[in-house]
Amino acid sequence: MKNALSALGRRTAPPPISWLMQAALSRPQMISLAAGFTDSATLPLKISRQVLNRVLRSSKTGQPALQYGITAGETNLRQLTARHLQKLDGNGTPGRRPQIHSWERTMITGGSQQLLYMTVEALCDEGDIVLVEDPTYFVFLSILQSRGLRARGVRLERDGLNLAHLETVLQRLKKSGGLRRVKALYLISYFHNPTGVTTSFGKKRGILKLLKKFEGAAGHPIYLIEDAAYRELRFKGPDIRSALMAPGAAERVLYTGTYSKPYAPGARVGFGILPERLFTAVQRIKGNHDFGTANLLQQLLAGELETGLYDRHVAKIRTRYGQKAQIMKQALTRHFPSNVEIWESGGGLYFWARLPKNISTGVKSKVFRTALKNDVLYVPGELCYADDPARRKPDHEMRLSFGSASEENLREGIKRLGAVLREVLGTSEVV
Amino acid sequence: MKNALSALGRRTAPPPISWLMQAALSRPQMISLAAGFTDSATLPLKISRQVLNRVLRSSKTGQPALQYGITAGETNLRQLTARHLQKLDGNGTPGRRPQIHSWERTMITGGSQQLLYMTVEALCDEGDIVLVEDPTYFVFLSILQSRGLRARGVRLERDGLNLAHLETVLQRLKKSGGLRRVKALYLISYFHNPTGVTTSFGKKRGILKLLKKFEGAAGHPIYLIEDAAYRELRFKGPDIRSALMAPGAAERVLYTGTYSKPYAPGARVGFGILPERLFTAVQRIKGNHDFGTANLLQQLLAGELETGLYDRHVAKIRTRYGQKAQIMKQALTRHFPSNVEIWESGGGLYFWARLPKNISTGVKSKVFRTALKNDVLYVPGELCYADDPARRKPDHEMRLSFGSASEENLREGIKRLGAVLREVLGTSEVV
Repeated sequence: MKNALSALGRRTAPPPISWLMQAALSRPQMISLAAGFTDSATLPLKISRQVLNRVLRSSKTGQPALQYGITAGETNLRQLTARHLQKLDGNGTPGRRPQIHSWERTMITGGSQQLLYMTVEALCDEGDIVLVEDPTYFVFLSILQSRGLRARGVRLERDGLNLAHLETVLQRLKKSGGLRRVKALYLISYFHNPTGVTTSFGKKRGILKLLKKFEGAAGHPIYLIEDAAYRELRFKGPDIRSALMAPGAAERVLYTGTYSKPYAPGARVGFGILPERLFTAVQRIKGNHDFGTANLLQQLLAGELETGLYDRHVAKIRTRYGQKAQIMKQALTRHFPSNVEIWESGGGLYFWARLPKNISTGVKSKVFRTALKNDVLYVPGELCYADDPARRKPDHEMRLSFGSASEENLREGIKRLGAVLREVLGTSEVV
Repeated sequence: MKNALSALGRRTAPPPISWLMQAALSRPQMISLAAGFTDSATLPLKISRQVLNRVLRSSKTGQPALQYGITAGETNLRQLTARHLQKLDGNGTPGRRPQIHSWERTMITGGSQQLLYMTVEALCDEGDIVLVEDPTYFVFLSILQSRGLRARGVRLERDGLNLAHLETVLQRLKKSGGLRRVKALYLISYFHNPTGVTTSFGKKRGILKLLKKFEGAAGHPIYLIEDAAYRELRFKGPDIRSALMAPGAAERVLYTGTYSKPYAPGARVGFGILPERLFTAVQRIKGNHDFGTANLLQQLLAGELETGLYDRHVAKIRTRYGQKAQIMKQALTRHFPSNVEIWESGGGLYFWARLPKNISTGVKSKVFRTALKNDVLYVPGELCYADDPARRKPDHEMRLSFGSASEENLREGIKRLGAVLREVLGTSEVV
């Protein structure tokens, strides 16, 4: 007898790093530079208690918090979120295009992950194509893979997507007939996962222009999904305007963000601003998923935003992540061989390390196995690359997270990894 | 230019009762007997504060509550949930088949709705068939509709599914070649939405036996999805064992439940016990949806269960719903014409009213429009019936909820509705 699973059920693979996480959990002496967890010590216990106590003290606020709500989210939190984004984007002058950050097109979701999932559901049929940065967020690749979609990689540079390569990819797809299957480009625009790269506003504008240019041949809109999950974890340099501020964005940019990273993953509230047509489609889909994210969590976040406690918390953790990034940088300089290229980030949770091209970092490589044996974990770069027939999958890189490890473990973890690399690379530089 | 939506995106319809809800919100004088909301006055504000305060007071419990967790849910809550179900099922004797309520196959989800959605994803390809009670939960029908699936209705009686009709439906599908597309039967076994019916344990066993009998011809397992969302809202009669207690259930029964209804919809934590193979598939899918339900809510529920506060709360709300059901019953006796058949329930949130077959209650009917004009809302029965070529869709029934309206509004709402019915039915009985 066959099994009864659907094509999706059969296709959906175990998460690539689940066994990494298992390995980390089963050996307490293991230092994980792999997990994208936030820093536990900075989690907002006190202010969460404060706001939850206030919300639950009176039945006027407590009852709605514990009751069902509206599929798209509580009006209050949608408005606060839209205003928050408007402020981040410097679109605060009264009368100056407030409709860009329209609260009516703002949706509250169970983390931004859920919004990404529903967006892909709303847009893509089996066989459709989504353009992604090369490399990109591996759980997004899992969504595409499970739904039978194709990802096509666009080269990434230190200041974001390579526009010339994007045009080449689009041209090539036009020629091959694939363009009609291209529904969106997925861009992690701030402190990119896994490379830490931030895309300049000029490039965002350029991407939108290029997508627009090819829409005629595609026969339908090609959306820009801007994933800004790490935006608020910025500790260096100015904030960059989101793609929402580019011309024509209201109809083409789907901006996703989250309170998980800057506030608390355990409260898991995400959000997005969507073009109207997509908003309607995704809202209906969310009606089938869960008819709305838990109100209690929404009221918690609304309370934090309203009182300014949120902003103060974010300022604090920025400093903290800045310090941890600095520690990782110093340790890398000290312990890593000089022929390993380091991409340092001005925010987020990750540094990107590129070994000489002939040295594999993959899960079966000597580097990875030796690291494991020496009780240090990283995310192999190969996991972050889509299957793309246009190129060989690079496997000489690693994602190093300074998010969850303690300062001491950051130093020790990088030291261990440096020793592994020197052993494998056969360098014996004096450090 | 075409739009870029997927087939699913285009298909997903607005929820059938969203405009009902809108109508209720826009007219404060409107009494809604439509919403499946729980009773706001009984929501557990005080004990939620108590447990959240305890969890967030120490970093030992507070940090994990605000951090990422495990996709299938926190071990603690999974174990507490499995033990809770084991107790409900009277499977408590040590050594007596504890593997039926295995915590390893217990999953925590964002309400049971999310689990239903992911289960359908894991099992069904476009064109597949799910057997449902006729009528059934309309949001489940929306899931099927959006995913291009077919529902086939099985007749419902006062003690549950009509087994002879189930066999007829399966036979007919076998003959037509449709059986190979049948993946599951969806059963709301306790205080059914919308009819209030509870399925006897004997019938559950009978259903499993029949499904098993047809598996050979189907070529794959046919699962029983037992939706027990209303199980704990029982105020009359004994609890019925779940289908998990029937022979062969571990491999075929997917039991879904929720803490939303008995505890708080605003905390939105659901759960399920799944056959191993389905557990694995759904867990992977959940990895793509949200990699785990918000830990803070999971810790809240774990705390309530651990301390016994949960059980005490449930005992309290049972009494309360029993009283409200009694009030609705008395009002129905007093105000409804005697040729309206009332299905009274021993739990849950709903009564089911059946008018003479020639009187429509649908959204375009005179009854519905007159009710609306008189500021009282109900859910038209027709919304709860699948599109099924085997029968005409009944449209002479109504779902009446005693969940959220106050006692005064219950009396007044039924009085208004009774007047509408007498007007339309042309009866002038003295009451």
